[in-house]
Amino acid sequence: MAADNMSLSAFRQLATKIVCVGRNYKEHALELGNAIPKKPMLFLKSPNAFLAEGEPIVAPPGCQNLHQEVELAVVISKTAKNVSKSDAMSYVGGYTVALDMTARDFQDEAKKSGAPWFLAKSFDGSCPIANFIPKSEISDPHNEELYCIINGKDQQRSRTDLMIFDIPTLIEYTTQFVTLQPGDLILTGTPAGVTKIVPGDVIEIGLTGKINAKFRVQ
Amino acid sequence: MAADNMSLSAFRQLATKIVCVGRNYKEHALELGNAIPKKPMLFLKSPNAFLAEGEPIVAPPGCQNLHQEVELAVVISKTAKNVSKSDAMSYVGGYTVALDMTARDFQDEAKKSGAPWFLAKSFDGSCPIANFIPKSEISDPHNEELYCIINGKDQQRSRTDLMIFDIPTLIEYTTQFVTLQPGDLILTGTPAGVTKIVPGDVIEIGLTGKINAKFRVQ
Ligand SMILES: [Mg+2]
Ligand SMILES: [Mg+2]
Ligand SMILES: [Mg+2]
Repeated sequence: MAADNMSLSAFRQLATKIVCVGRNYKEHALELGNAIPKKPMLFLKSPNAFLAEGEPIVAPPGCQNLHQEVELAVVISKTAKNVSKSDAMSYVGGYTVALDMTARDFQDEAKKSGAPWFLAKSFDGSCPIANFIPKSEISDPHNEELYCIINGKDQQRSRTDLMIFDIPTLIEYTTQFVTLQPGDLILTGTPAGVTKIVPGDVIEIGLTGKINAKFRVQ
Repeated sequence: MAADNMSLSAFRQLATKIVCVGRNYKEHALELGNAIPKKPMLFLKSPNAFLAEGEPIVAPPGCQNLHQEVELAVVISKTAKNVSKSDAMSYVGGYTVALDMTARDFQDEAKKSGAPWFLAKSFDGSCPIANFIPKSEISDPHNEELYCIINGKDQQRSRTDLMIFDIPTLIEYTTQFVTLQPGDLILTGTPAGVTKIVPGDVIEIGLTGKINAKFRVQ
């Protein structure tokens, strides 16, 4: 099963899962005191996480330390299982930019106790996301500039070639374990600069010259 | 949005997520050396986890210690957000029985390093599952007998009233953070008796007198 650009532009309705990669930029791993991973560190958000422009970002109940993580997102175009690196890019239908909103206090507690990350990462609205960019508009996803501007000031800005595991590697690794479906997303990790988000903040994310989206925190 | 029994019987196609509860039976928490939780410990499987009768159970690549966990599954019938305990049962459309297949070695490594549980819990086929039972056929889901028979011998057998957090509590807690959709499942945790599964094993699961399903391990 393969999906064209028109169907993929409705990825929010199509997606059955959002596979996220943790610690995929060295400076970000280090800013949170984590080791550089030897293999991709994957976790999951479910579709209730999607939040479109115009909808407010809201911290989950009890969260005292909500963080933003801007990430390049890959949109899968056809059913992908046991895909090799060399074939991986033919399973990519396009891209977008997303925020991996994280209840950092929930996550810190989970990391300390060896508990799952679900409530830290997959609460309602934890994946604010821009619109679909067809693959034809991005010739090299590892040669783009990713940014996050908060209240008008640069908070994150990085070239995407700083990813530790590139997109073909992420697709090969993931599809050993998990079948990706058309509309499913891979969030490829965040560069350095995550910080505490508070009500009233305005968060602007994008890929320079390609796409932009703005979200308000309630 | 609400779904009737006919649509809910296709929960495998409808579901956008499977919310699972860890350590919800005291004897099971203790058998793995874990503390009794003070609040529900939730994690997520995505729909690629579903496995129907007739399809083989396969360990994910690299897993050396695959475990079975039989669980009563609740099928949600209508969109559920911020639902109170007293209203919770009106969001239940029915039930089924599932296996929360777990790559215990992946999970042990994740627990030790504070990493997410995704690959330990949500690999392809990690949720073998029986058919839908309409709510009308189970007057009290906390008064059923849940069983798992491996190669003809009892491996797990428990009354469902031994759950630490009952179904209304699980729905109230979950929907504070996450919107449940029609066809979504809650897997309510496993009783004691998890063990290592090997190729050739035949695993039979059910609710006594209500439903039964059989799976072969490849
Ligand atoms: Mg992230
Ligand atoms: Mg998890
Ligand atoms: Mg379980």
